[in-house]
Amino acid sequence: GQKLFVIAGPDSIESEDMALRHAWMLKEITGRLGVPYAFKCSYDKANRTSGKSFRGPGLKEGLRILKRIRDEVGVPVLTDVHETSHVGPASEVVDIIQIPAFLCRQTDLVEAVARTGKGVNLKKGQFVAPKDIVHSARKAFEAGNPNVLVTERGSTFGYNNLVVDMRGFAQMRDAGLAVCFDATHSVQLPSAGNGETAGERRFVSLLARSAAAAGIDALFTEVHEDPDRALCDGPCSLNPQMFEDVVRNVLSIRRVLGHEPG
Amino acid sequence: GQKLFVIAGPDSIESEDMALRHAWMLKEITGRLGVPYAFKCSYDKANRTSGKSFRGPGLKEGLRILKRIRDEVGVPVLTDVHETSHVGPASEVVDIIQIPAFLCRQTDLVEAVARTGKGVNLKKGQFVAPKDIVHSARKAFEAGNPNVLVTERGSTFGYNNLVVDMRGFAQMRDAGLAVCFDATHSVQLPSAGNGETAGERRFVSLLARSAAAAGIDALFTEVHEDPDRALCDGPCSLNPQMFEDVVRNVLSIRRVLGHEPG
Amino acid sequence: GQKLFVIAGPDSIESEDMALRHAWMLKEITGRLGVPYAFKCSYDKANRTSGKSFRGPGLKEGLRILKRIRDEVGVPVLTDVHETSHVGPASEVVDIIQIPAFLCRQTDLVEAVARTGKGVNLKKGQFVAPKDIVHSARKAFEAGNPNVLVTERGSTFGYNNLVVDMRGFAQMRDAGLAVCFDATHSVQLPSAGNGETAGERRFVSLLARSAAAAGIDALFTEVHEDPDRALCDGPCSLNPQMFEDVVRNVLSIRRVLGHEPG
Amino acid sequence: GQKLFVIAGPDSIESEDMALRHAWMLKEITGRLGVPYAFKCSYDKANRTSGKSFRGPGLKEGLRILKRIRDEVGVPVLTDVHETSHVGPASEVVDIIQIPAFLCRQTDLVEAVARTGKGVNLKKGQFVAPKDIVHSARKAFEAGNPNVLVTERGSTFGYNNLVVDMRGFAQMRDAGLAVCFDATHSVQLPSAGNGETAGERRFVSLLARSAAAAGIDALFTEVHEDPDRALCDGPCSLNPQMFEDVVRNVLSIRRVLGHEPG
Repeated sequence: GQKLFVIAGPDSIESEDMALRHAWMLKEITGRLGVPYAFKCSYDKANRTSGKSFRGPGLKEGLRILKRIRDEVGVPVLTDVHETSHVGPASEVVDIIQIPAFLCRQTDLVEAVARTGKGVNLKKGQFVAPKDIVHSARKAFEAGNPNVLVTERGSTFGYNNLVVDMRGFAQMRDAGLAVCFDATHSVQLPSAGNGETAGERRFVSLLARSAAAAGIDALFTEVHEDPDRALCDGPCSLNPQMFEDVVRNVLSIRRVLGHEPG
Repeated sequence: GQKLFVIAGPDSIESEDMALRHAWMLKEITGRLGVPYAFKCSYDKANRTSGKSFRGPGLKEGLRILKRIRDEVGVPVLTDVHETSHVGPASEVVDIIQIPAFLCRQTDLVEAVARTGKGVNLKKGQFVAPKDIVHSARKAFEAGNPNVLVTERGSTFGYNNLVVDMRGFAQMRDAGLAVCFDATHSVQLPSAGNGETAGERRFVSLLARSAAAAGIDALFTEVHEDPDRALCDGPCSLNPQMFEDVVRNVLSIRRVLGHEPG
Repeated sequence: GQKLFVIAGPDSIESEDMALRHAWMLKEITGRLGVPYAFKCSYDKANRTSGKSFRGPGLKEGLRILKRIRDEVGVPVLTDVHETSHVGPASEVVDIIQIPAFLCRQTDLVEAVARTGKGVNLKKGQFVAPKDIVHSARKAFEAGNPNVLVTERGSTFGYNNLVVDMRGFAQMRDAGLAVCFDATHSVQLPSAGNGETAGERRFVSLLARSAAAAGIDALFTEVHEDPDRALCDGPCSLNPQMFEDVVRNVLSIRRVLGHEPG
Repeated sequence: GQKLFVIAGPDSIESEDMALRHAWMLKEITGRLGVPYAFKCSYDKANRTSGKSFRGPGLKEGLRILKRIRDEVGVPVLTDVHETSHVGPASEVVDIIQIPAFLCRQTDLVEAVARTGKGVNLKKGQFVAPKDIVHSARKAFEAGNPNVLVTERGSTFGYNNLVVDMRGFAQMRDAGLAVCFDATHSVQLPSAGNGETAGERRFVSLLARSAAAAGIDALFTEVHEDPDRALCDGPCSLNPQMFEDVVRNVLSIRRVLGHEPG
């Protein structure tokens, strides 16, 4: 087995200070746990349920902050893009470019991201079967980029609910894909709040453990110093202590199953 | 009741001649049936399952052809856009701009389309409950555009399948929305083919009748002179005779229920 | 086309008087509308969410009342059975024996019901695809009974919700089955109440119209003189006026589509 | 944590010798692994997709064989019942009586089983949300039997497919229920074969590991000396070596999470 790769950070850049603080904190925790780590943060929440919700600092200011984090904290940085015009600017700053789940079938976006040569984190759409995401990944491969991580974040299950089909991890790995589990967005209850997407933080750890037992290459989770005050997806976010506990549990399961070296 | 509005056309512009021919043919059929009509055609299939599939003539050439159709055939024209940068050029040509289902939560795209003042056809995502699409529509309303049509095209139902929840038409109308039924894409079996989305043409008429009985404001269906040779979504497309039969049945049901004037 | 067959009645026998009254009333309404009719009523609600809910008068007393209705009102009578031991007694009284949805795969029960020679109303399980219910029906056919009606009552859609897949009516008819639509139980929200199954009466008419437009042989709906006081499934039941309106709409749609003779 | 309880055996009694042989073999394996164990076998497959499929030796002969196994092999025995009339005879032989998933809401059956005072294994219906199975369990509790195990075996997910929602284990435990995971029936693809239920054995181990990581009290799995020749549910059954590996993995995960004593 290979070492688990961890992607973590606050959902969105609420302020420059806040983002920097989280990057240092998460670098410290993951360093202590001995896991390879990338800092995740969004500069723009482009698909909120309501048009009036918080979106973030925007592309230019967001990338400036992410560059500062990359330079000062010394961690690889991941962010998500929403249109092809964002791909060039993002690729000058970040190490991994993420394609949002709703956009996972947008050929131009996948190809543009792939052509940057940066790492590609392709979120699997809530409407895509595990065995079918390989078609989207292939768009990136055929654009010349083999560094594609496919991220599970739940499948549509009736209305306002998602379910994680653990069989999917094996199906995606059997298709030759490196797979990540996004434990945060998998506990969303889409639009179930009052014009907002709700979430069930209490299931993040459980699902992360189950996914680890199924077999994953990477773990994605959002962390906020005070999740109940987060400006986006707080109900799904972990606080730092929960994050550390989740990673410890995931690593323990991986070790006992022989998935983790050492 | 108000007259049914019909949106129809081939899935994509396979050639200039082909698009023109279809526009004339559909104008003739809908004229004979006495239904208000808009010609639908895509200049780019931006989210095919495979990156190697046919996509169309592209934005510039596609809009030139759609303009010629609008001018020469004298019908309102609808097309779909995939990035905010397409919205301006599209708005100079078409009467109704369509927001694809996967993109129905992309705030910037919805707002940009709405701000053009053109008609907005907002496809309901396969992952959105009927009662929740109002949040996306509200983004358009709040951008100052009241002319929003919301289009049902099926909900994710397990893997590689969609189901049309007829209750949704009432829920959306109760929310104050004008609703359209896309009978073509509702019979898709996503990615169920060999690296392609399959479809079941034989259910188009049945679902259109059921939706008409539930209560709709508009009907959307793709029509191709030879569906089995269509370059995209052929398995879901009707031929011209089927289209005429479907519209006749839908009108009959509407009249008998008092939904159609006259 | 053949004439629509209507199965209607209160969910359960709340009292002898109440059952008789409803049978007369529904005979009068259906007679006026000119539709063949069978009276439906359960003697036992054997699978309530809670063990403490109302269940009915039981097998012996229930059958006595149903016999009186059959003799005095002069209508065919339908009831549902829950164990093979009920089949013999029920077959001495009723014209059509119904197999509950949860029990549709119980081979012994299906065969025992079929062997009585009475009409068989096989409810399709919420967990059975339309194309698969033919396997259950075949158990009845192979027991020598060709008089099998298969009844759609919704498919499991996430938790606490059902969806009616209108394509199923065609798939079942294509398999050679006579199909009925149970508009009452299709609007259930299983266990969604506080330890009870809730329901959305307002969708009964809409779904009945949609099913009629799709193509059905029979319509099943529960009717109660005062649905809000019904002892079981009140939230899904129609009052007599609603019932009459639903049947009228269904007949209108059938006539205009050429499904109904006359 | 408490020790994991294991329920295992062939799906059905194919012959007296075969059942005895499996009981000895599984007693040996579980004894070696140090896990408490009950032998599971059905005397009747009462709900096969096809009426022509193998069903087993029937109640009387089946119970005779199970009694012999209980007496000679010295293991607790579990079997499933399908009608209330089976409950008395079964209770004279077996230690745990199982209520099939399709029958989990049948009040009479649940109460009759509970009143025997034997252990109750209540399978959760494929159509029941985790938070709702407590209503069925309560029917047993209120009949005076606290020894109820609730068994997850997948939820209906579109047609011909099941998904295991790992969140359910926590929801059921939070409701005060002891929970078991049936790894065999969770990999069924209902009716997906040619008039048969298919299955994906390769996911049994993965789902058992994921469930163990989520937190379970018991594990249920069917084992056959030669699964490809099993007369029922062979595609879902493990062979003895696979079974041993699955239990070892599950125990390892439980130990590392502190769920297993020792």
